[in-house]
Amino acid sequence: MMIQIAILGFGVVGSGVAEVLEGNRRVIEKNIGKTVAVKRILDLRDFPDSPFGSLVTHDFEEILSDPDISIVAEMMGGSHPAYDFTKAALEAGKSVVTSNKEVVANFGAELLKIAAAHGVRYLFEASVGGGIPIIRPMINDLSANEILTVNGILNGTTNYILTQMIESGTSFADALSDAQKKGYAEANPAADVEGLDAARKIVILAALSFGKLLDPKKIACEGITKLTGEDAAVAKALGCSVKLIAHTEKANGKILATVAPCLVPACNPLSEVADVFNGILVNANMVGEVMFYGKGAGKLPTASAVVADILDIVTHADKKPRDLVWEPACENDYADEADYRTAFCFSFANTANAAQLAALPSVRTAKAAGRVALLTPPMTRKEVDAILDANGAKPLSILRVL
Amino acid sequence: MMIQIAILGFGVVGSGVAEVLEGNRRVIEKNIGKTVAVKRILDLRDFPDSPFGSLVTHDFEEILSDPDISIVAEMMGGSHPAYDFTKAALEAGKSVVTSNKEVVANFGAELLKIAAAHGVRYLFEASVGGGIPIIRPMINDLSANEILTVNGILNGTTNYILTQMIESGTSFADALSDAQKKGYAEANPAADVEGLDAARKIVILAALSFGKLLDPKKIACEGITKLTGEDAAVAKALGCSVKLIAHTEKANGKILATVAPCLVPACNPLSEVADVFNGILVNANMVGEVMFYGKGAGKLPTASAVVADILDIVTHADKKPRDLVWEPACENDYADEADYRTAFCFSFANTANAAQLAALPSVRTAKAAGRVALLTPPMTRKEVDAILDANGAKPLSILRVL
Repeated sequence: MMIQIAILGFGVVGSGVAEVLEGNRRVIEKNIGKTVAVKRILDLRDFPDSPFGSLVTHDFEEILSDPDISIVAEMMGGSHPAYDFTKAALEAGKSVVTSNKEVVANFGAELLKIAAAHGVRYLFEASVGGGIPIIRPMINDLSANEILTVNGILNGTTNYILTQMIESGTSFADALSDAQKKGYAEANPAADVEGLDAARKIVILAALSFGKLLDPKKIACEGITKLTGEDAAVAKALGCSVKLIAHTEKANGKILATVAPCLVPACNPLSEVADVFNGILVNANMVGEVMFYGKGAGKLPTASAVVADILDIVTHADKKPRDLVWEPACENDYADEADYRTAFCFSFANTANAAQLAALPSVRTAKAAGRVALLTPPMTRKEVDAILDANGAKPLSILRVL
Repeated sequence: MMIQIAILGFGVVGSGVAEVLEGNRRVIEKNIGKTVAVKRILDLRDFPDSPFGSLVTHDFEEILSDPDISIVAEMMGGSHPAYDFTKAALEAGKSVVTSNKEVVANFGAELLKIAAAHGVRYLFEASVGGGIPIIRPMINDLSANEILTVNGILNGTTNYILTQMIESGTSFADALSDAQKKGYAEANPAADVEGLDAARKIVILAALSFGKLLDPKKIACEGITKLTGEDAAVAKALGCSVKLIAHTEKANGKILATVAPCLVPACNPLSEVADVFNGILVNANMVGEVMFYGKGAGKLPTASAVVADILDIVTHADKKPRDLVWEPACENDYADEADYRTAFCFSFANTANAAQLAALPSVRTAKAAGRVALLTPPMTRKEVDAILDANGAKPLSILRVL
């Protein structure tokens, strides 16, 4: 039996999907008992040298009106027209799979509802963690659990930069430039280094955990652009890594989701997730901590997750599983980041007033790179601000500790 | 809608399943839209003080003949009568879920066939890695991949002992005694420390990867009982951990599965899997390396995986997914461990003949604990034996390097 699909966007991931389906055709037939073939590829460009070049169309209507195409794989990136094409495909009774975290994070609640109403599916395993299985395991394998927290290193570009900064003492600017040369960072790296990419991914994981889709633009989101070599040196002296941590938890009925550079102690498995790798640590009430680790980006790993979604749809073609329901979050669903309780690391010039520093709450101190740093006991940002205000000491940097 | 199940064996995991179903009843109802209740519990003992005590029966026939019971959760341990009850339940049209790796590893091929023939399911997520999602992700999320290798730390007891030996310089005997005091090792620790537990788990992962079920007693299996403090010190000096590694790969159409203590370099994410944690590193042809990490044992984590299987069956009650097919392996399917190519670590007394050692192939050397050790380039055990035979040097220990 032959299943025919369309690919929207023949860039890195889109062409990877065609390659996975073709290159692993025999494995796939063995695993699911059916053949999946690409019938049409939508792109603005032509690909005369590609073996798939003859499948290219510039007209989405050709895909939409083709009754042979039951599944659409959207890998265009950006909100529009990706969202519009997704909606149209779902309304036309086609299932859609995507790697597009921007569309899932912004429109996922609506698109899931449309999919359910039309008896089709909207799957997005590749939108978080590239090829790492995380979305489906959270739905299927942690189904007996209440999710308590998720902490993730969800952006490979920033993790590469931070690994360089902490291991080689490279400055942020040099590490970024190195990442760009190696193809790990884009020419315009803003969405990565300012945290928006991670913010989109953590709102997806928060929606899976708590059923409400937050707006990624409304959560507390800090990137890594202000981190200095001194911050990295201080972290190292304290036995910690520095990681861009995306965090979510439910607090007093509200949902907290944050993205911020954090010190990660060596005992936390996320501290060892280096270079372009991603790691997602889920804490659930029965299973405890489980971590998912792998390459968070890249052509074939991401395509592997997209194709897993396609095969999931094919496997359950006769009877689709229960629909996922996400509600869009309202103002009242957002927890205040200032109430989030963690340890903090304050870092001062080593010329700072010693008596003043001694009066601050501290469980550990270290000196490095002309800095003196202290780790506080767990407290909220509100408490931090009140204490520093009363004490008068002015840290050069304040970072949370995971 | 109410789904009724029976629990076979009300020990640690069995009572954990009842606790998870009861304690997370609301989460489960939200996630799958149905209620799952325990109707009967089979055990030789009575549990007058348990809230589930009134459900206990000593007669399996009562469960087998009860048409209300559609799912049986087998947590008895051991091959018999667990296998016999599983077979009877499947033949009576009941799906079975289990945490019993001994039954899956010894009888999985036959039981899957019986389940398929009777239109029911046999699931065993909890048989490997306790609560860590690994079985279902390998089936569903890596479905577009050809599995190349699996390397796992699959036994928490031995990993705890090895962590003590390498971090605190404890002897094997002392670390084992400590593990027994803490409840991590059983009074009779043979199945753990001699590697049989890990062997059962790796043949399950090999069957998932390659479709053939090997006999755990027929694979090359070495435990940790011969490891010394000197081995641990030498590994540390070489920048490695020592881990009991279960490995499988396909080689020239045959299946290799081994369990042996190995040096694991710091760059391998398995090197950081410490204490009672498990980690499973899967290398697949499209996704590359992905790792699954968490607690490999324990009451509630393991029960969480058993209940995930129950909920999988409930979710797909109307239409079960494609059956998993395993063939029992024949003699010709077993690859010879002596052909498996890795680096090796040779460890000698530091009084050994220097000229002789200098003549051995080596990419790195280190000294520690009165030993001199060298790392070889990748070679097979057959080549190792030939080289040592020709050279005449007699290592005190020979360990593979992952």
